[in-house]
Amino acid sequence: MAQLRIALAQTNPTVGDLAGNADRLITWTRAAAERGAHLVVFTEMFLTGYPVEDLVLRTSFVDASIAALDEVAVRLQREGLGELPVVVGYVDRANRAPRVGQPKGAPLDAAAVLHQGRVVTRTAKHHLPNYGVFDEYRYFVRGDRLPIFRLHGVDVAIAVCEDLWQEGGPVSVVGQAGAGLLVVPNASPYEKEKDDVRLELCARRAREAGCALVYVNQVSGQDELVFDGDSLVVDASGELVARAAQFREELLVADLDLPVSTAATGTFPYDAGDGSTITVERLVLSQDPVAPYPPEPARVAEPLSTQAEVYAALVLAVRDYVAKNGFRSVILGLSGGIDSALTATIAADAIGPSRVHVVLMPSRYSSAHSLADAEELVRRQGLTSQVVPIADIVTAFEKEVGLSGLAAENLQARVRGMILMGLSNEHGHLVLTTGNKSELATGYSTLYGDSAGGFAPIKDVPKIMVWELSRWRNAHTDPMFLLEAERPIPENSITKEPSAELRPDQRDTDSLPPYEVLDRLLDDYVEKDMGSRELIAAGHDPELVTRVIGLVDRAEYKRRQYPPGPKITPKNFGRDRRLPITNRWRETAP
Amino acid sequence: MAQLRIALAQTNPTVGDLAGNADRLITWTRAAAERGAHLVVFTEMFLTGYPVEDLVLRTSFVDASIAALDEVAVRLQREGLGELPVVVGYVDRANRAPRVGQPKGAPLDAAAVLHQGRVVTRTAKHHLPNYGVFDEYRYFVRGDRLPIFRLHGVDVAIAVCEDLWQEGGPVSVVGQAGAGLLVVPNASPYEKEKDDVRLELCARRAREAGCALVYVNQVSGQDELVFDGDSLVVDASGELVARAAQFREELLVADLDLPVSTAATGTFPYDAGDGSTITVERLVLSQDPVAPYPPEPARVAEPLSTQAEVYAALVLAVRDYVAKNGFRSVILGLSGGIDSALTATIAADAIGPSRVHVVLMPSRYSSAHSLADAEELVRRQGLTSQVVPIADIVTAFEKEVGLSGLAAENLQARVRGMILMGLSNEHGHLVLTTGNKSELATGYSTLYGDSAGGFAPIKDVPKIMVWELSRWRNAHTDPMFLLEAERPIPENSITKEPSAELRPDQRDTDSLPPYEVLDRLLDDYVEKDMGSRELIAAGHDPELVTRVIGLVDRAEYKRRQYPPGPKITPKNFGRDRRLPITNRWRETAP
Repeated sequence: MAQLRIALAQTNPTVGDLAGNADRLITWTRAAAERGAHLVVFTEMFLTGYPVEDLVLRTSFVDASIAALDEVAVRLQREGLGELPVVVGYVDRANRAPRVGQPKGAPLDAAAVLHQGRVVTRTAKHHLPNYGVFDEYRYFVRGDRLPIFRLHGVDVAIAVCEDLWQEGGPVSVVGQAGAGLLVVPNASPYEKEKDDVRLELCARRAREAGCALVYVNQVSGQDELVFDGDSLVVDASGELVARAAQFREELLVADLDLPVSTAATGTFPYDAGDGSTITVERLVLSQDPVAPYPPEPARVAEPLSTQAEVYAALVLAVRDYVAKNGFRSVILGLSGGIDSALTATIAADAIGPSRVHVVLMPSRYSSAHSLADAEELVRRQGLTSQVVPIADIVTAFEKEVGLSGLAAENLQARVRGMILMGLSNEHGHLVLTTGNKSELATGYSTLYGDSAGGFAPIKDVPKIMVWELSRWRNAHTDPMFLLEAERPIPENSITKEPSAELRPDQRDTDSLPPYEVLDRLLDDYVEKDMGSRELIAAGHDPELVTRVIGLVDRAEYKRRQYPPGPKITPKNFGRDRRLPITNRWRETAP
Repeated sequence: MAQLRIALAQTNPTVGDLAGNADRLITWTRAAAERGAHLVVFTEMFLTGYPVEDLVLRTSFVDASIAALDEVAVRLQREGLGELPVVVGYVDRANRAPRVGQPKGAPLDAAAVLHQGRVVTRTAKHHLPNYGVFDEYRYFVRGDRLPIFRLHGVDVAIAVCEDLWQEGGPVSVVGQAGAGLLVVPNASPYEKEKDDVRLELCARRAREAGCALVYVNQVSGQDELVFDGDSLVVDASGELVARAAQFREELLVADLDLPVSTAATGTFPYDAGDGSTITVERLVLSQDPVAPYPPEPARVAEPLSTQAEVYAALVLAVRDYVAKNGFRSVILGLSGGIDSALTATIAADAIGPSRVHVVLMPSRYSSAHSLADAEELVRRQGLTSQVVPIADIVTAFEKEVGLSGLAAENLQARVRGMILMGLSNEHGHLVLTTGNKSELATGYSTLYGDSAGGFAPIKDVPKIMVWELSRWRNAHTDPMFLLEAERPIPENSITKEPSAELRPDQRDTDSLPPYEVLDRLLDDYVEKDMGSRELIAAGHDPELVTRVIGLVDRAEYKRRQYPPGPKITPKNFGRDRRLPITNRWRETAP
């Protein structure tokens, strides 16, 4: 057996910012060297950021990624870090003739080993996920090479992200070919309680590959995706050895005892067990084991509670969306209700209360407690606030256009949306919307009204969870939060009955079932794709099932705020041009 | 050789409307029987409509599709149509164990042959397109069976849509196995001048398969997609035999002389030439050739000019979007400029002028000719119009919130958007937006202002083409247009210099390059994914390249009008729940 100290670079790359990500790679590699690491592993597509969506179809972008990899290898050497091997993800391309349906340029979701100023070997993701948030058949072609490089006598294999989740392919080939360590760069989006699944998966694949496994995931907010880190190391029996925090950058260092190999170098084809053949390339960086040294104590971060991890995800998402889009401040409407209270609190935790601007926009139907509760939150948190009454503007509209009922209610919400957008255009604040998932799912919101804005921190949070997170935040502080207030949310905002206050004495329950009932039904219908028969069999009230399905399906229409329109060219905007918003890639003239 | 009369049912199914589509199948089969057809071929997924997006992941929906197929087979028999074989697309499922990444329920993009009250054989699409507007790896698993059924002595094979576009697979297997006729149900979205590509492709595949080929495509507007029909028949040498119109429903009937087969029945595996095996199933419906009969003269529709086909696509898209979403009327702002003039004209051609409501919303910066040109268009077309001046509403806003420059310009556009949305909410009209592709691409429009609405008829039409289509429409009438006006668009709207009129003496060229230059650059950057180096090499001005790329990439942000938000559950709204808007599927209680 031989010792190796592995550094897992759980970092936060920016999509498209090749120069910035390369700088980050140098900084973190230096830190790993200072900690005495023998190998440092970065995340999937670290050099380009992940996901890059349609950018990958642009020749200039793939060229730049390949060039950036070569440059950073040289730079590592020049800065005295060339002896420390680096595993890093980037975008490469396969040498393939174009054909119908194949992504332009045949891009690869690649990873490489950098050593002594050179790229010593390359691989690419074999299994392309194309479900949920992933569209990788659109963007990549399959990799079919598996490098196993010997480092101080230990054979180290590389697989990329999804290759861990699928049966067959690289992990099964590692099991057949034999290796001492499998390192896996990932960009695996956060989902509630995914950490439990992830550990179980890594343990199973380690046993299958017959070796220790290093799993490195990015920490990042990227448009709608949040990446939670949670990088970890398991030994060959699947036991957890080390684990990094969630939602924080961290250089996790783990000392491992690994088997020494003297297997022959060369290339060897293996049946991947999924109908394809994978070529193993064995090479040697160094054969001599390192001199024995005292291992560092293993670091194993405690997993967060469900509320803590969801809240941390929302804070990171807002922080990164604001920063990566180049905003310096946010603005939102504060009603005194719980949704805007929680949204403001998340924003203050993300970027600090002084950069959170709130607007109180009372109407003729606003109750006294609304303004009071909003003002109390401003006071507790130290936000910047202003009051803009909407009554006179609504009256001016009503003089020109006669509106009644729902149309009149929507008008008030739209006047508020316009005020926020006007202030955003004038001062450069990012508008945050405050709608929760229960409202959005059922269409209980106004198009171009409360739904107008640039980022929706709680759009995926059901109402019941809005209350849970508010109570949780009032009971907890954490060094990752910038807001120092104790109990930042006024109790009355949490306990009062929800109302849109767009007509006298309005209550959410006038239009919607109680949220306890609604949220359970929405979860079964939306997340689990249950049909009405299954929903009723699961115990939901039949009448309510029909009503809520009707609401959700009709609300689909509202969510397409950028109106669809007939497509007459290869790429219209919306459906088939998909660029990440939070994107720093800039085409430059030669 | 044996004669066969084939009927191609170029029809317009509605997504999710299984009962309605089944009725349509009966009606069209009866018409085919009356024309003496021996086989009738419907389009891809005709029973469910295409595309159904995430509906296909719902067990209840797939169950309903399979049941609808069985029912319609029985009904054909009951209505005396059982002896006429019908080829029709629907959704089926493969019998496969669930696994990570496989679409839930393993759905198939299937086609079946109905005969004598039964489903006699089934197949499914083998090549799944996952580029452009297609995401089929998300929705379907691959088919691996190819039925060849003998009809009056002629062997008829079936392949589905994409199987025609890809090398290898079903077409190559037909070539090896031998058949007298290949029928191909399609749902192939329209793109400018695609008809030329399509004929060439069908000719090539007919020669490859060594038999005549029947290509049937739907005619339909479905959210952003338009399907143009253009169904056709080529003989085994690739010569065009018959062709249906574009953008109109049509029962195309073609008489063919085809080889008689006596090949053995049974199942036979073939190497599909793409790394997979396809099982051919040969069966016999009838061996005796039909008695000789005089063929009908072949119908070969003339392809439309580029302007005619684009204009017809826009009209069909609006007509179907309005009807399939259950609207009865549309509303839009009419400025006197060419974009809103063309949009109104398309709408009037689609649903008739009496159902097109226009609002003239002059501001303090509107020029005299704007109102006059708008009024002249209303007069020529007989639209319903009203005037709502915006000055007092803008003043009421400005009293509460100080806005300047671009923020003040946006305010005016947003007041107009609110007026249209208010009238839409009050009266139930669908709001049409009037932005063209050049504006949208460069962000030359106001979020929640002129971009507010439910459908954007010209969002994929560059400005230069807006003028071309306007001139073309003024010079042409067509029975598919409901508007009877001669020269419906005032000449002054076409010839005057474009202006947003949001500040004194504003011109589009204050902010944008001339449209002749801009449109060419956008085409290369957006449609062809050229990087800056390629754009400059193609002759575009280097400074302009940098400026326009900056505009387009920044505008990406605006287009996400429904704000993105952090994802914390399997399905949030937006990124990963994708239901067709124009959808008639309703979950019903058992």
